[in-house]
Amino acid sequence: MKLKELIARTRSYRRFNESHRIDYKILEGLIDLARLSPSGANRQPLKFVLFNSKRDCERLFPSLVWAAYLKDWDGPEAGERPSGYIIILGDKTISEGFGVDHGIAAQSIMLGVNEAGLGGCMFASIRREQLRNEFSIPEKYEILLVLALGKPIENVIIDEINDGDVRYWRDKNSNHHVPKRPLNELIVKL
Amino acid sequence: MKLKELIARTRSYRRFNESHRIDYKILEGLIDLARLSPSGANRQPLKFVLFNSKRDCERLFPSLVWAAYLKDWDGPEAGERPSGYIIILGDKTISEGFGVDHGIAAQSIMLGVNEAGLGGCMFASIRREQLRNEFSIPEKYEILLVLALGKPIENVIIDEINDGDVRYWRDKNSNHHVPKRPLNELIVKL
Repeated sequence: MKLKELIARTRSYRRFNESHRIDYKILEGLIDLARLSPSGANRQPLKFVLFNSKRDCERLFPSLVWAAYLKDWDGPEAGERPSGYIIILGDKTISEGFGVDHGIAAQSIMLGVNEAGLGGCMFASIRREQLRNEFSIPEKYEILLVLALGKPIENVIIDEINDGDVRYWRDKNSNHHVPKRPLNELIVKL
Repeated sequence: MKLKELIARTRSYRRFNESHRIDYKILEGLIDLARLSPSGANRQPLKFVLFNSKRDCERLFPSLVWAAYLKDWDGPEAGERPSGYIIILGDKTISEGFGVDHGIAAQSIMLGVNEAGLGGCMFASIRREQLRNEFSIPEKYEILLVLALGKPIENVIIDEINDGDVRYWRDKNSNHHVPKRPLNELIVKL
């Protein structure tokens, strides 16, 4: 698949077929994509926690803050929740800061997720202390991002942005619409 | 090409065939990859400056801090310098913070660069005031990253890390070696 097609397919999905279990080998392969991605000064301070069991997924779910723009929606209901997670941690014994390493790694991972016929969503809005307590995450790790993964069951449509409003929304057929700025707005001529 | 192969090929290159000019259409296509990549709360606050002319490249080059681990090397010599650049800016009129949006965008772009048979290097070590002054970059833009691009002429080899030393190095044949941590070091079991 051409990269452009893969990136276009890599939308943020928030509703899944929860009964679809994700093989641990797939999760490991995703971390290998992150491993081979650039890291500031090659420090490689990121660590990854992989969850694919029903029990761990149930324990993690309440730590996420879902879709701030959808006021009437508190996240996917039972049966439509993620069936896998990757927690991206920053190892403070390796580096005090993590720059954008986790953004780079997360994008590599999410492209791999979509290439594998799955989908997901990156979360920076995390109830971090709740998550740390639930899984006894050692203090030496900073909680950077959570990637929620699964077999998507929703349709995501990219629209051209209108009146500068960036809020995504759902239509009456539950299609998820995402307004994107046009290319000419992104390129600055100096 | 499979994503794994593309990511494995996407190394940080620092020496180029400077006479290879990069078509502006290629640069625009790269920004479209960034445009379709995730953005925190879908705010899309990133802006991009594209340079492919010899003159602009010469003006930008001195603003970059090259390869901190190579003590005897101040960056590529004339003839081996980048022939294109993308400056990633954060538009402060859209958002005060940029999260890891620029990491996500930069990885999408660099994958596209390598798919196109080119290569490059992400820079966060930038002489920001010098760069701002040289191109009169308005204060409303935060300078986040610079991506240096070109037709690579160096060979990059990934080695398994040894004794925890993450510093890349060059062998006597000018091969650039990059030590990477093994997968099992990156996965944390909780």
